[in-house]
Amino acid sequence: MRNFKEEKELNVLNHSCAHLLAQAVKHLYPQAKFWVGPVVEEGFYYDIDLGDKSITDEDIQAIESEMKKCAKADKYIVRKEISKEEALKMFEDDEYKLDLISRMDESEGVISCYTQGDFTDLCRGPHVNSTKELKNFKLIKFSGAYWKGDANNKVLQRIYGVCFPTKEELDAHLAELEEAKERDHRKLGKDLGIFMFADLVGKGLPMWLPNGFIVRHALVEYITEKEMKLGYKHVMTPSLGNVDLYKTSGHWDHYKEDMFPKMELDNESYVLRPMNCPHHMMIYKNFLHSYRDLPLRLAEIANDFRYEASGACCGIERTRAFTQNDSHIFCTPDQIESEIEGVINLILDVYKDFGFENYKFRLSLRDDVNTDKYFGNDELWEKSEAALRKILKKSGAEYYEAEGEAAFYGPKIDVQVKSAIGHDVTLSTVQLDYQLPERFELEYVNEEGKKERPVVIHRAILGSLDRFVAFLLEETKGVLPIWLAPTQVYIIPVNPEYHLKYSEKIKKRLEEAGFRVELDDRNEKLSYRMRESQVRKVPVTLILGDGEVADSTVSYRQIGSRETTTVSFEELVELLRK
Amino acid sequence: MRNFKEEKELNVLNHSCAHLLAQAVKHLYPQAKFWVGPVVEEGFYYDIDLGDKSITDEDIQAIESEMKKCAKADKYIVRKEISKEEALKMFEDDEYKLDLISRMDESEGVISCYTQGDFTDLCRGPHVNSTKELKNFKLIKFSGAYWKGDANNKVLQRIYGVCFPTKEELDAHLAELEEAKERDHRKLGKDLGIFMFADLVGKGLPMWLPNGFIVRHALVEYITEKEMKLGYKHVMTPSLGNVDLYKTSGHWDHYKEDMFPKMELDNESYVLRPMNCPHHMMIYKNFLHSYRDLPLRLAEIANDFRYEASGACCGIERTRAFTQNDSHIFCTPDQIESEIEGVINLILDVYKDFGFENYKFRLSLRDDVNTDKYFGNDELWEKSEAALRKILKKSGAEYYEAEGEAAFYGPKIDVQVKSAIGHDVTLSTVQLDYQLPERFELEYVNEEGKKERPVVIHRAILGSLDRFVAFLLEETKGVLPIWLAPTQVYIIPVNPEYHLKYSEKIKKRLEEAGFRVELDDRNEKLSYRMRESQVRKVPVTLILGDGEVADSTVSYRQIGSRETTTVSFEELVELLRK
Repeated sequence: MRNFKEEKELNVLNHSCAHLLAQAVKHLYPQAKFWVGPVVEEGFYYDIDLGDKSITDEDIQAIESEMKKCAKADKYIVRKEISKEEALKMFEDDEYKLDLISRMDESEGVISCYTQGDFTDLCRGPHVNSTKELKNFKLIKFSGAYWKGDANNKVLQRIYGVCFPTKEELDAHLAELEEAKERDHRKLGKDLGIFMFADLVGKGLPMWLPNGFIVRHALVEYITEKEMKLGYKHVMTPSLGNVDLYKTSGHWDHYKEDMFPKMELDNESYVLRPMNCPHHMMIYKNFLHSYRDLPLRLAEIANDFRYEASGACCGIERTRAFTQNDSHIFCTPDQIESEIEGVINLILDVYKDFGFENYKFRLSLRDDVNTDKYFGNDELWEKSEAALRKILKKSGAEYYEAEGEAAFYGPKIDVQVKSAIGHDVTLSTVQLDYQLPERFELEYVNEEGKKERPVVIHRAILGSLDRFVAFLLEETKGVLPIWLAPTQVYIIPVNPEYHLKYSEKIKKRLEEAGFRVELDDRNEKLSYRMRESQVRKVPVTLILGDGEVADSTVSYRQIGSRETTTVSFEELVELLRK
Repeated sequence: MRNFKEEKELNVLNHSCAHLLAQAVKHLYPQAKFWVGPVVEEGFYYDIDLGDKSITDEDIQAIESEMKKCAKADKYIVRKEISKEEALKMFEDDEYKLDLISRMDESEGVISCYTQGDFTDLCRGPHVNSTKELKNFKLIKFSGAYWKGDANNKVLQRIYGVCFPTKEELDAHLAELEEAKERDHRKLGKDLGIFMFADLVGKGLPMWLPNGFIVRHALVEYITEKEMKLGYKHVMTPSLGNVDLYKTSGHWDHYKEDMFPKMELDNESYVLRPMNCPHHMMIYKNFLHSYRDLPLRLAEIANDFRYEASGACCGIERTRAFTQNDSHIFCTPDQIESEIEGVINLILDVYKDFGFENYKFRLSLRDDVNTDKYFGNDELWEKSEAALRKILKKSGAEYYEAEGEAAFYGPKIDVQVKSAIGHDVTLSTVQLDYQLPERFELEYVNEEGKKERPVVIHRAILGSLDRFVAFLLEETKGVLPIWLAPTQVYIIPVNPEYHLKYSEKIKKRLEEAGFRVELDDRNEKLSYRMRESQVRKVPVTLILGDGEVADSTVSYRQIGSRETTTVSFEELVELLRK
């Protein structure tokens, strides 16, 4: 995806196109008043007060036509610099512009406005020279938006659009948007019965439907088993904690804005947890530890809760309640290197299982100039940064360094995966933490019998399971790998009247072999039922008719393929197992 | 366990013994003032103000000795009836008694006091005739208790005791208490590393430790698999909901006192859910349903949260955050009978797997006289009560009927299991609900294409998983069935120097066969390590020495047995699988 805000040429072009939009709107709705029309990452938008009028799809078409006309008119876009006084006079009937102008400080620079034909707008610019350069545009979507984002204010009409130098670029962009829409996990999640939302339950609170449960359960079992084989100890801790717990951890001071409000109970305050580190610290602290017991790798499939503005919630990608594949490794300073290496290897192993290939490690380091904003001493930082770098080099994976991006409590490694629609998604993370052990006064007894502080390594592999499923759906267009597919085999008896019995037998045998099977015995056309299996994204469809019954075989088709193959039952099972 | 409150003779005896306790305390601590000394289910107690003095174990011994002396003194216990005025005069220096007397209403009856030797207490009686009848007593425990249970008031000293007519009964009771203590899941849970609590996390909020995770995970997988085979569809819904959801369900009006306080967010109110029925109603409501799709059996391993007074929290038996093995079956009225029968069969099946034998079904019916306090019409109730009765008869299980014990929304069946220490514990429940479908306006399309209301069946098999684990620990004294045991096999090389390699090989093979194994290769005596395996309640211990290495065999001992058996590796695996 192009970034309209960062690419300079696109930025100017789109900014000018916002004016073109405003000009067309003014022609069609003379009562229109304009608030702001900025360029954002995904294009431009303009917030417009149309009185009581709400924009419709038909309006958008009319506006686009009018924009084409204005563009063709080939008007120069002329800049004029004016004083604040002149500006206030010029827009004296426009409360929105007056609001903007009154907050402008002339010392910041001059006030400028731009005119194209019959339309003038206040703007810093720069703009293109003529409206004719604005040929290749498209209005993308529209919505209501509170003036200044405040729910107590009037709702303005916000119209989004994009503009490109060439038709080819515009078409490519629209095709990309179409592709993104098809991959949108919110659409796929609904179509495939993965999850749902309900207003009465609440914003950002997903409910996982039966198919979604199967996917999540398979993911949870997959990662839990892998972790337990590597010596991780799984625990289960409650979704809330005393506010004092988060005061001890420091979250209450630094993270409160992102948390749910507290609940008062029996003279105590409780709060839904935004993360589960403090609970794991308390488990560590509950026992005496010798250097011989370390590393201790506590892991949890943990329910966490964060306050997200309702507008920021997005499907299961960004929610208010989510589940983390989290772990905290408690180790001695000497064990940092081998522990981080273990985590990196686990990440590589998991990505291989999922077939992820397009990713980079990002090593986030301290800002060497302002070292005072970081916790701990120079030696510690230098040693651990060097250790992380060494491990990344050794792993052979692609990585880059990001100076100044470390957390204040320690350096970290994130994995940035490039998604099918070109987004950078952070899935996994490994973070060193010198501060929490200090705050919770964690200890272990070293070889000399003396008490020392352990180091904590925060680590997530699949990250938030919710976001991970969103990512998987978008990557696979809903065609999940067979071990995650809610229904793995879809059986269609060609003629239910004759082939049902055999189909039921095959279903039973497959279920006994541990597969999730559905039998479509409806009296519908074969082609109709075949399509159903495609729409439902079932990886393997069996078509069972006279031939299969006679020879005791099965004919299967893999999703996306038009080829039908006939094999024995045993061969099918072997194929499914692969 | 005897019930001191219900058994009349025990009640009088213990009430008198409370006076004996007070008399002895007064002898030892002349400053003592007495609040109330009632008989409760587990014996008697007295709340005493000793000024700044807190009771210690040594004090209890001294008080018991003094009580013995007072009992031996063989004083008559004499009743005297007095007027309120006389009573106020008699106790004019005792603010506690004045508080009691001032609230007494003479119309209720006379005020009486009882005197034994030098001690007089205000009391309704009745009492035994002489202190010498109070020979067989024991002080059980002591604690602080707020006056009138209010945390703003002074802390009084509460001393608990029991008294019996015979020494045999007292001894039997003390033995039972000892047994109960040994079975106490709080002690076992700590010793076996099942769970822990921390003040900083909060009261009633258990943290499941690695061993506890294994037990819970095995239970969850066990019941989920069973349910899915029976056509239950598992879902996962969030731990909180909009308050409006609970207004719709009726919980906000009728159950608010038992819920956590609400959280205000973006002009909306959210609340931790006390139960997950409303979420499941919303899932049903999200789709169109035909009679052909019913029954729909939604199930969830669901996190729920209830406000329990901090004093009511008890280990993992009663918590503020717990997990239910819950389900809601949506069906047509015609399907009620077969669905309930399915649930009863599942209950019987699960109890057989766990070896529970001492249980009864309780059929809770409507109070036929006051039918107006129940939801729905007579015909519905009569029909469904008859259906439940028929199913219970057919199942052949022991059951009894409890009139007037139904929920107001429908009749129900509970299963009461008798625990090893004699408590009645309700594990499973099946409840018909005609009301929630009404409140959420649930519908399905019947065979004539018309809309009808489904019926909802609430159902829990293991109930709260937390409480179930508490129950299992107490029943088994911590010796869990092998498939639940955190460590299933404990391997002890007789001499680590010589037998470690073979032990490691056996460990690896067992792990490959799917078992949880620990190897104790410490340089400790064999007997020391054998004891460790017993303390840790590991079901099977392998002792591997010269003989086993030479013959490629294994010698095993089952927990609680002193017998060692030598078998081949394959025979061991077969034994473990059983």
